[in-house]
Amino acid sequence: MANTTATLTILSQRDGIDLSDFQRDAKDFGLPADVPLHVEQVTLVGGKQQGSRLIALTVGDITVRVIPTRGMGILDAVRGDVRFGWDSPVKEVVHPGFINQEASGGCGWLDGFNEMMVRCGYQWAGHPGEDRGEFLTLHGRIQNTPADDIVLEVDQQPPYRVRLRGRVDEKRFKFTNFELDTCLTLTPSSPYIEVQDTLTNLSSYDNTYQGIYHNNFGAPILGKGARLHVTGKKVAPFNDYAATGLDTWAQMSEPTAQFDEMVFNIESLGDEHDMAYALLESPSQGQGIEVAYKMDTLPVLTIWKNLDTPEQGYVVGIEPGTSYAYNRRHQWDLNLVPTIKGKESKHFYVRFGLLTNATEVHASKDQIAKVQGETPCVVETTPTVRLD
Amino acid sequence: MANTTATLTILSQRDGIDLSDFQRDAKDFGLPADVPLHVEQVTLVGGKQQGSRLIALTVGDITVRVIPTRGMGILDAVRGDVRFGWDSPVKEVVHPGFINQEASGGCGWLDGFNEMMVRCGYQWAGHPGEDRGEFLTLHGRIQNTPADDIVLEVDQQPPYRVRLRGRVDEKRFKFTNFELDTCLTLTPSSPYIEVQDTLTNLSSYDNTYQGIYHNNFGAPILGKGARLHVTGKKVAPFNDYAATGLDTWAQMSEPTAQFDEMVFNIESLGDEHDMAYALLESPSQGQGIEVAYKMDTLPVLTIWKNLDTPEQGYVVGIEPGTSYAYNRRHQWDLNLVPTIKGKESKHFYVRFGLLTNATEVHASKDQIAKVQGETPCVVETTPTVRLD
Amino acid sequence: MANTTATLTILSQRDGIDLSDFQRDAKDFGLPADVPLHVEQVTLVGGKQQGSRLIALTVGDITVRVIPTRGMGILDAVRGDVRFGWDSPVKEVVHPGFINQEASGGCGWLDGFNEMMVRCGYQWAGHPGEDRGEFLTLHGRIQNTPADDIVLEVDQQPPYRVRLRGRVDEKRFKFTNFELDTCLTLTPSSPYIEVQDTLTNLSSYDNTYQGIYHNNFGAPILGKGARLHVTGKKVAPFNDYAATGLDTWAQMSEPTAQFDEMVFNIESLGDEHDMAYALLESPSQGQGIEVAYKMDTLPVLTIWKNLDTPEQGYVVGIEPGTSYAYNRRHQWDLNLVPTIKGKESKHFYVRFGLLTNATEVHASKDQIAKVQGETPCVVETTPTVRLD
Repeated sequence: MANTTATLTILSQRDGIDLSDFQRDAKDFGLPADVPLHVEQVTLVGGKQQGSRLIALTVGDITVRVIPTRGMGILDAVRGDVRFGWDSPVKEVVHPGFINQEASGGCGWLDGFNEMMVRCGYQWAGHPGEDRGEFLTLHGRIQNTPADDIVLEVDQQPPYRVRLRGRVDEKRFKFTNFELDTCLTLTPSSPYIEVQDTLTNLSSYDNTYQGIYHNNFGAPILGKGARLHVTGKKVAPFNDYAATGLDTWAQMSEPTAQFDEMVFNIESLGDEHDMAYALLESPSQGQGIEVAYKMDTLPVLTIWKNLDTPEQGYVVGIEPGTSYAYNRRHQWDLNLVPTIKGKESKHFYVRFGLLTNATEVHASKDQIAKVQGETPCVVETTPTVRLD
Repeated sequence: MANTTATLTILSQRDGIDLSDFQRDAKDFGLPADVPLHVEQVTLVGGKQQGSRLIALTVGDITVRVIPTRGMGILDAVRGDVRFGWDSPVKEVVHPGFINQEASGGCGWLDGFNEMMVRCGYQWAGHPGEDRGEFLTLHGRIQNTPADDIVLEVDQQPPYRVRLRGRVDEKRFKFTNFELDTCLTLTPSSPYIEVQDTLTNLSSYDNTYQGIYHNNFGAPILGKGARLHVTGKKVAPFNDYAATGLDTWAQMSEPTAQFDEMVFNIESLGDEHDMAYALLESPSQGQGIEVAYKMDTLPVLTIWKNLDTPEQGYVVGIEPGTSYAYNRRHQWDLNLVPTIKGKESKHFYVRFGLLTNATEVHASKDQIAKVQGETPCVVETTPTVRLD
Repeated sequence: MANTTATLTILSQRDGIDLSDFQRDAKDFGLPADVPLHVEQVTLVGGKQQGSRLIALTVGDITVRVIPTRGMGILDAVRGDVRFGWDSPVKEVVHPGFINQEASGGCGWLDGFNEMMVRCGYQWAGHPGEDRGEFLTLHGRIQNTPADDIVLEVDQQPPYRVRLRGRVDEKRFKFTNFELDTCLTLTPSSPYIEVQDTLTNLSSYDNTYQGIYHNNFGAPILGKGARLHVTGKKVAPFNDYAATGLDTWAQMSEPTAQFDEMVFNIESLGDEHDMAYALLESPSQGQGIEVAYKMDTLPVLTIWKNLDTPEQGYVVGIEPGTSYAYNRRHQWDLNLVPTIKGKESKHFYVRFGLLTNATEVHASKDQIAKVQGETPCVVETTPTVRLD
């Protein structure tokens, strides 16, 4: 028997559908009542979140909150009683209509930054600044772009896989003609959230692009004694300040006043399927977040240690990307400004393992150790880029 | 008997009316049922078109789609089975709330550019850049400004003329105090869409202004062998690249990779009523778009040949204006930055002839030839402005 | 018996409440029917005010119109038949989604400027321009930020005091973590509107801030012969142009073409409760607007005489602030860039006296004279800051 799938269109201009606030359960998709599946959408009100929408999707013991009005970013995820995400000083789910990315030297993006997973890209990502005659704002435009063609797909057979899809356009006449097809996959019995994105360059012409998956985690995974494990070939400091913290780059301190942020650049190391891994294990080693990613399009990893006070956003970013977090002008020489041909599609794969017990954490560490094997992870003491 | 007119207020804060999604037919306006009249409005959803509105107005055999949320611009028009407009890579009817015109050196306007008729202006139009201490973004602000006081007027007597009006404000305390009253007129038996705009400077003081009617046409009117006919006194290339295509400035090639755009500046030639004409006839000579315009306020014409691939937007612009497409700083010396006195109104008249058979096309060519008469259209080989 | 208070939540994401368009009367709050109390909210449509909201609150003989979508600013107030506010060329209550403060050299704020009370701040206020590596747009961001947690509180006992509260966030990750709790208080038997704002720096770290209450009044209070009375220690011209009008800084002329604006800087003088006063009395001396403010956080006063034609906005600003209207870069040396510590709150108190008869005006003048007493108000002839 062929697999069949129930489909729920949540938003589609083409089909004239906008479900707005709704909820559905397993039975609405023809599933057995004991399959843990629930989806709902709410429209937010008040402040700069007026008109923002939030989709809460529960599959198995995971509830993930997705923001369709912010490029299908992930606000947070909860598995059992463990929340994955962070506490930003920005509390609102800010509607892009209130964001001016050009503000304050290209830093307007920071007005809405509070998600667990923020896509940066795709015409450019990284720090604001001039490159080749164009002023690039922080981390590009995709996250401040609402999605269309939002669809939930529910497989009718075990393991009852559930996919949430949405399309985000990044288009500027003569400059950019990108469409991003996003897909989040959850499975009732699985601790994983899979992100499978396809970036298509609809132009006749080649273009350059950049993408960073800015994944951010605070307490309870982050805490004093939390530790990073990655599969890597090389780690280097982002700048002089990070160089001073190189010895403990993988260790997490308690919230520390005046810490600000240290950033480390990692050349990823993949397994036989080109998958690279990073794990942040909690102080107790009983919880962890594993970020696995496919290296063919995401060859490097940025570790953003923002170990400042809770009020400043005590958080670590585990960010696979085409590129590091530098302004694009620094990345041409690093060969980290890839080309997407006319009509070409690029695929991105990022998988979040929401690990909530010591066994899962242990298995992840074993896997990372196995992939690393005898390959040394060289520690470079000088910053990758000499910033002025 | 005096003429009487039925009026439908579609949107008016003053009157507390917002019809939102609606439709009306001839009978709703007290007209005979066989008068072809239909009007409807839809509110769009999804992506960056969330909240955009589209008015589709059918009068006779013409359906024109107007975007009240984008300054009463015309998305496209269909007469019989011929569509007038073009296929931009930008597919959404982008809501101005998502446009940041300051982006990427003043090019944010391009994020929403896909209409058949886009008004550029009115404090300034033309390419982005600094002039007299102010940074001017591409083509001014009017198109990214929603209209108010939108009214449909239907004459109760033959020829049952129909007018769609809307007001667009362009105001900045101390700088600009403009109101634009737009009016589109259609008549059941006519192939014409008339645009009659009145720009009023409500300030006590004189100001300068610019306006360009950026009218854009792709297939099926545009194609290999399509040809332009204009009434002109002079044609000159916009820049060095256009100078290389001067010999064939009026001839249209097939979509051509790497063509990008060639722009030509035309000094218009008017008839005894000060009307100037431009016709793009289709390759088969069986269809055409005629753009007629009143020269008193629109003395020059820009021809924008964007004959690149379909994916890039294969399109020709026929753009009467107060000015050419240069940044304003180049136009003072050309005397193309007119003054609008305090309390003065300026009237703009542009008429689109949607020609769908050889007879109509032939008549338009005859008319253009008659107006041109013996007046030569001088071809200048050097660009109007020496750009750096 | 303890005071009790009836509470109406108008907007709150936390509580899932958005009353949208509504109205309530005294009886809805359990008050005697003869207590003059009415509140209503409307959502505006059309143009750039689509989605803007307006709360009209009547208490006693005062109706004040507050704009929750514009930071709880006051559009205008009417007591009896006297309107307090002004007629800006900007007629719409512009929704912040249509404002781009970066436009035209940081002047986009002017696109929406038409209120009686506009808050400027709080990360910065004043004229646009570069300071310490950051481009500051005109008068900061708070007024173009919608409020949340909007609540009306009605005391159940005489004097039946009514408070309208709302919270406005000004947050940018790593830069600003401010929350502003606004409160407007009216009392049925009183001619006063009290503004009590609390700015809280939620960050762990000290920050600087600025705030100006940009209060603006036109006819009928303003007119030829209207006169300002202030409690001040010093008055100085803002720039060379204002220096030419120093002799008549407190006298108001009729609307005067080419007047543009003269600005005067006043060092305030307070009474024993640290309150300073400014009164604009009408030409007939039968009406007036008294602005009283607490000097601990608002030590200086800007007088903005914009006595140009009515079309330009014939208006006087009476603006207590932490700072003058200069760009912030000029105010460090004046000690007018105060610090707000981490977790600290700053309180602002501004009281509007809506005076509608000669007795009230006379009493206000007496009070001002009493506070001024023998203290001279020194007139400085050179501008406070030497502008380039």
